[in-house]
Amino acid sequence: MSDSADSAGVHTRFRPLDAIIAKRSGEEHGSDVIDALVRGYVAGDVPDYQMAAWLMAVCWRGMTPRETADLTLAMARSGETLDLGDLPHTVDKHSTGGVGDKTTLVLAPLLASLGATVAKMSGRGLGHTGGTVDKLESIPGFSVDLDEERFRRQAREVGVVVTGQSKDLAPADGLIYALRDVTGTVESLPLIAASIMSKKLAGGAHSIVLDVKVGSGAFMRTEADARELALTMAAIGRHAGRDVTAVLSSMSEPLGRAVGNAIEVVEARDCLRGGGPADLRELCVVLASQVLARTGLPAARADVERALDDGSAYERFERWVAAQGGDVGALASLTLAPDQELVRAPRSGVLAALEARAIGEAAGLLGGGRARKGDAVDHGVGVLLHAKVGDPVTEGEPVATLYHRGGKGLAEAARRVRDAVKVADQAEKPPLVLATGLGLEG
Amino acid sequence: MSDSADSAGVHTRFRPLDAIIAKRSGEEHGSDVIDALVRGYVAGDVPDYQMAAWLMAVCWRGMTPRETADLTLAMARSGETLDLGDLPHTVDKHSTGGVGDKTTLVLAPLLASLGATVAKMSGRGLGHTGGTVDKLESIPGFSVDLDEERFRRQAREVGVVVTGQSKDLAPADGLIYALRDVTGTVESLPLIAASIMSKKLAGGAHSIVLDVKVGSGAFMRTEADARELALTMAAIGRHAGRDVTAVLSSMSEPLGRAVGNAIEVVEARDCLRGGGPADLRELCVVLASQVLARTGLPAARADVERALDDGSAYERFERWVAAQGGDVGALASLTLAPDQELVRAPRSGVLAALEARAIGEAAGLLGGGRARKGDAVDHGVGVLLHAKVGDPVTEGEPVATLYHRGGKGLAEAARRVRDAVKVADQAEKPPLVLATGLGLEG
Repeated sequence: MSDSADSAGVHTRFRPLDAIIAKRSGEEHGSDVIDALVRGYVAGDVPDYQMAAWLMAVCWRGMTPRETADLTLAMARSGETLDLGDLPHTVDKHSTGGVGDKTTLVLAPLLASLGATVAKMSGRGLGHTGGTVDKLESIPGFSVDLDEERFRRQAREVGVVVTGQSKDLAPADGLIYALRDVTGTVESLPLIAASIMSKKLAGGAHSIVLDVKVGSGAFMRTEADARELALTMAAIGRHAGRDVTAVLSSMSEPLGRAVGNAIEVVEARDCLRGGGPADLRELCVVLASQVLARTGLPAARADVERALDDGSAYERFERWVAAQGGDVGALASLTLAPDQELVRAPRSGVLAALEARAIGEAAGLLGGGRARKGDAVDHGVGVLLHAKVGDPVTEGEPVATLYHRGGKGLAEAARRVRDAVKVADQAEKPPLVLATGLGLEG
Repeated sequence: MSDSADSAGVHTRFRPLDAIIAKRSGEEHGSDVIDALVRGYVAGDVPDYQMAAWLMAVCWRGMTPRETADLTLAMARSGETLDLGDLPHTVDKHSTGGVGDKTTLVLAPLLASLGATVAKMSGRGLGHTGGTVDKLESIPGFSVDLDEERFRRQAREVGVVVTGQSKDLAPADGLIYALRDVTGTVESLPLIAASIMSKKLAGGAHSIVLDVKVGSGAFMRTEADARELALTMAAIGRHAGRDVTAVLSSMSEPLGRAVGNAIEVVEARDCLRGGGPADLRELCVVLASQVLARTGLPAARADVERALDDGSAYERFERWVAAQGGDVGALASLTLAPDQELVRAPRSGVLAALEARAIGEAAGLLGGGRARKGDAVDHGVGVLLHAKVGDPVTEGEPVATLYHRGGKGLAEAARRVRDAVKVADQAEKPPLVLATGLGLEG
């Protein structure tokens, strides 16, 4: 057990049971209690069953903004933290997760080309498709295993570096998340906010933009919940002396047209050259200008769009890929899985829905994600959409291509994609960006 | 993990996580889910951390009467159960715990003398003073270690037998209670009701009277909470085919005048001979007539009072003590601790409060209870009250005698008793029995 000193300097033993009972009674914890609980859990002094009861009590009673900030800081301090103070205009971006979300691949070189430093340590996620690190590994030769010296040198020289997580950033978050996952305590706004922000704070960037997804393919199903999460995370950032702003964006259909790993790199590449799908470009421009505005660097839409259109963002992308050992020549023609299956429009009309979650699940069924830590990801498989919501479609014409390997997972994946496609007589293109500048107060 | 069969006979694997999420979402569990959870926990397949999260979700969302009954039955079935079906008019009594509560010592022979069978297996409780088994062991030679054959023979021949718990009755309750105790999930009405009733159901008696205590010295502080607990437990009993009725009684001051172990046996003996404190006698008469009314045996107040006054209850007490090896001759002069300390009235007036919890704590400090399983209990120590609430007192006259052993725990115990005593100009004698016949429906 941890000791804490009261105002008279008397050390009193921290009792996890007292914290559980206080939280179930709806009381607010002092900072020392939250700190002792997190430290005790990481040290193994607080057993899983007490942490589980406390987490469920938090789901029940919630936490005040101050408690949530204290929890985040305690988790961020539970391991090593990255100090990026010697680098100019450090920025970071977090998305709450969506299908086809390759914005980091675009934003990192785009922001660097405009004078910011993007130095990220990313974990390998679990999910229907791989995380950013997995997508980058679709590029032949690309290495995410850099030691800290090389990480810092590349950040300084290229302005952008993304590695696998070599430092033990916010280990409390990993431990607590694993427990939440098996105790039905994932869905708690303060716990979600603390989990995300603990890693962002440990990651060291000064300016952070959060892309909070809303919709059927996102963790937050309603705009109200997403807004509250965004404001909670921004408040945590302010409490920790960081500059945090949040954007709400729609995740009912996938972002862009590509869902997979290599296939998403191809789409990101096109976007960095001024092309690619309109929604991907729009979201990247919004996120970039939002975070740049916090740094004092050029941040008007026109500045950001110019960097995409004049080749400077793409040039930075190539420098980044080369710096991490990637084959720049291969970027023009990344290898996708050899076999293809078309899903066709069931009738003529307007595409009314492309249920993001189902499309993501289809990519996972083809082998594009991992269910367990350590599983291999098939970089070549994925789904390419030929139409987006609001587009006219003709009966029998392809609406999606499934890139598969010898039929693995194909039947079920194709069924999911077919079920995800809804055609109607009329449908409106839904708004992509629902709110910007959230959390900017004072 | 346990399997359960759905209506089509297809076996589906029980997932504790699904149960946790369902309960935190406020859903009602099916009987199969509750059964699988309890069986899985006892078998070690459901880990403590998942049970802890589920218990906190129950504290949050509550349980329906049907769920509570299912939980109780699952816990009762988790080990051996006593089948008393071959014995006439089996009755049992449970008190939710109070200071100076020696009613079982009186009721067991009293009910037997009126034709009922009282065959109880009692655990050794934790608390300020010992449990019924500890109190009985104050009698020289009294043995609570009887094998089942002797237990059944004595039940048949004497009509009353109380042993230590030799069978593994409702082991799920012990396991779950131990977890609740360290996870802040003790205070949940359905969990409290299920815990009590699982042991009563496993204990096998057909007619059960519950004495639910209300007040500062009881677990239930308000009459409304006590009433709800009583009705919940009675409903569980009905669901299980038992005949359950409940009484609400006050526990703001101790019951009777004696608080300890041997000293409570002395008071119970006096009550069985038609003497003893009025409140103890009244509660015993009420509880006895309530439960006897469920059996068809003579149950009028007059029948019960006659058994106390004509010596038949005491005669049965002696037969009981003798049957379990106790020294009947020693009952006249049980040995108390050799040292005594008086607590005197601080002023003249009327005794306005005798805070039960503090008096109980004092008896515990003197050595009369146990904090941990296996601790020894000092049978001789205790507190004897010379006045009860509503009685006139004179400054400097004794209101309590503390029986201690060489001053062990005395200073703090005396302080507690002094603090527990409040004298005022006027005070009313509070009602003892607040409600009877609760739970008798349909």
